[in-house]
Amino acid sequence: MSPASNAPAVAAVDWGTTRMRVWLIDKDGKVLAERRGDDGLITAQQKGFSALLEGHLAAMGAPDALPVIICGMAGSRQGWLEAPYVSVPSPIGAILGGAARVPGQSRDIRIVPGLAQRLADAPDVMRGEETQLAGAGLPAKGRQLVCMPGTHSKWVLVEDGAVAGFGTWPTGELFSVLAAHSILRHSLGEHPKPVTADNPFFRRWCETALAEGGDVTSKLFSIRAAGLLQDLRPDDAAACLSGLLIGGEIASANRRYDAGAVPVVLIASGSLATLYGEALGLAGLGVRTVDADEAVRAGLVEAARENGMIARIGVAR
Amino acid sequence: MSPASNAPAVAAVDWGTTRMRVWLIDKDGKVLAERRGDDGLITAQQKGFSALLEGHLAAMGAPDALPVIICGMAGSRQGWLEAPYVSVPSPIGAILGGAARVPGQSRDIRIVPGLAQRLADAPDVMRGEETQLAGAGLPAKGRQLVCMPGTHSKWVLVEDGAVAGFGTWPTGELFSVLAAHSILRHSLGEHPKPVTADNPFFRRWCETALAEGGDVTSKLFSIRAAGLLQDLRPDDAAACLSGLLIGGEIASANRRYDAGAVPVVLIASGSLATLYGEALGLAGLGVRTVDADEAVRAGLVEAARENGMIARIGVAR
Repeated sequence: MSPASNAPAVAAVDWGTTRMRVWLIDKDGKVLAERRGDDGLITAQQKGFSALLEGHLAAMGAPDALPVIICGMAGSRQGWLEAPYVSVPSPIGAILGGAARVPGQSRDIRIVPGLAQRLADAPDVMRGEETQLAGAGLPAKGRQLVCMPGTHSKWVLVEDGAVAGFGTWPTGELFSVLAAHSILRHSLGEHPKPVTADNPFFRRWCETALAEGGDVTSKLFSIRAAGLLQDLRPDDAAACLSGLLIGGEIASANRRYDAGAVPVVLIASGSLATLYGEALGLAGLGVRTVDADEAVRAGLVEAARENGMIARIGVAR
Repeated sequence: MSPASNAPAVAAVDWGTTRMRVWLIDKDGKVLAERRGDDGLITAQQKGFSALLEGHLAAMGAPDALPVIICGMAGSRQGWLEAPYVSVPSPIGAILGGAARVPGQSRDIRIVPGLAQRLADAPDVMRGEETQLAGAGLPAKGRQLVCMPGTHSKWVLVEDGAVAGFGTWPTGELFSVLAAHSILRHSLGEHPKPVTADNPFFRRWCETALAEGGDVTSKLFSIRAAGLLQDLRPDDAAACLSGLLIGGEIASANRRYDAGAVPVVLIASGSLATLYGEALGLAGLGVRTVDADEAVRAGLVEAARENGMIARIGVAR
């Protein structure tokens, strides 16, 4: 007899720099339980990866022998076990299939590799986003341009189910670092409200950045000057900076990869999905949005399958 | 009888955010004495502008009635006295002539105004650089593009002796903030060596940024990836970041102002003069370098003259 469909078949873990998420998943790919914590890579380096993971699994009532599939920074050199980068170009399935097994554990624990683009003039790496990509339900044929916004936004060119190339725009990090540590902190204030896509300053500065083809450095100081000369308010200054950086990212990525007539696949959740959706529209690009949380879960299930940790057959996508 | 030419006629002060420089200058514009201190705007806000200035003047043996001409952030809203911005376009002489007199002082102390560009889509301000510009010995006729690199690099378009427009590229600040607070701190290390213009990484990344037309953000993460994939060393990572940001600034400014066939006037000293000289050359632009220290002193003398603090006649430029 096969196990009941509400019994967990695998634990799926998205383990990033600052947070982790754990899902118990049944043999059909259905989520049975979820936990989220702030114990990302940085905490785990101090408290131990195994202890943290086992603590979460015990709290969720996971069986002792339940296998675990992990993606994200836990697989970096500073992580639990380095899961060596797969070089692109590479079929997406082949990336997931190469998960590295953590030695000396009582259960079967594997970490999905990241991707490396070993080009002399455009070296790049990703960890975690390859799993989102695998779970985004991309068609097996044709050319897709995928945008995964965040601290380090990734744009991926997928051709016939294989990663042809990718790039990183550190948009989220630039926003945080400039807001906290540059002269713009005087303009944005200490706690600007979250930026919303209907803020006219977001839209206007996004359009400016799009028109400038990704040149954002020439406009940064204008946000400060607008505070001095035009009484720009802190919340609107934050919207200017957000619009400028997101618009600049889209202009630059579109210049590199040329989205063309096919909609950009936007893998994002929450306010990032809204802001990027708006900005892509301002750039005149079509958008198909995929929820980022669902994508990473689906990608982890796919990885568990590719590594033989759960059965391939009879499983819903 | 006129005073001996080795008697001080005016004290000239360049008072910035983090440092100040004081020169005693005779009626012919010759420097008699110089002092430099770390007591810029931030220190002065605590210790008092008058006390700090009088301390420097006393240490230099300046007479009690010696007039003082000041440029820089001491004239900002957070400074000693706000010297209101002059709006551009404006003839350079007219800017200097509007120095604001500090009230309640026993001596004649005046602060040169800054410049404001009140354009809806390109608001900008400068304080201090207008004085360098006035002291750069620009021709009274023709079109000049002037580059004043620094924390907030200024590019100024001068037409027939008047400021037609200007822009700010926060290149020095971006370097500092990214080196200290972004993921690139792992690549550059804690104390990278000062970047030199003969570092091949500086040159290569400068050329990349020039080719990308000022799009810098798409390349930032590649410095991190080159550390992971290509064993890029910390000092060379610093050279990459410097080359990328300076090349991006030049590409962007040249796109906005079009230097054309006339050499760019580079007002700079020390290593910045060397790095920007090299980068402007890589961009295929001619360069005429003016020493920044000499320019600000000459500009302050010019300002003292324009405000009637020293005689106009018989004064060497």
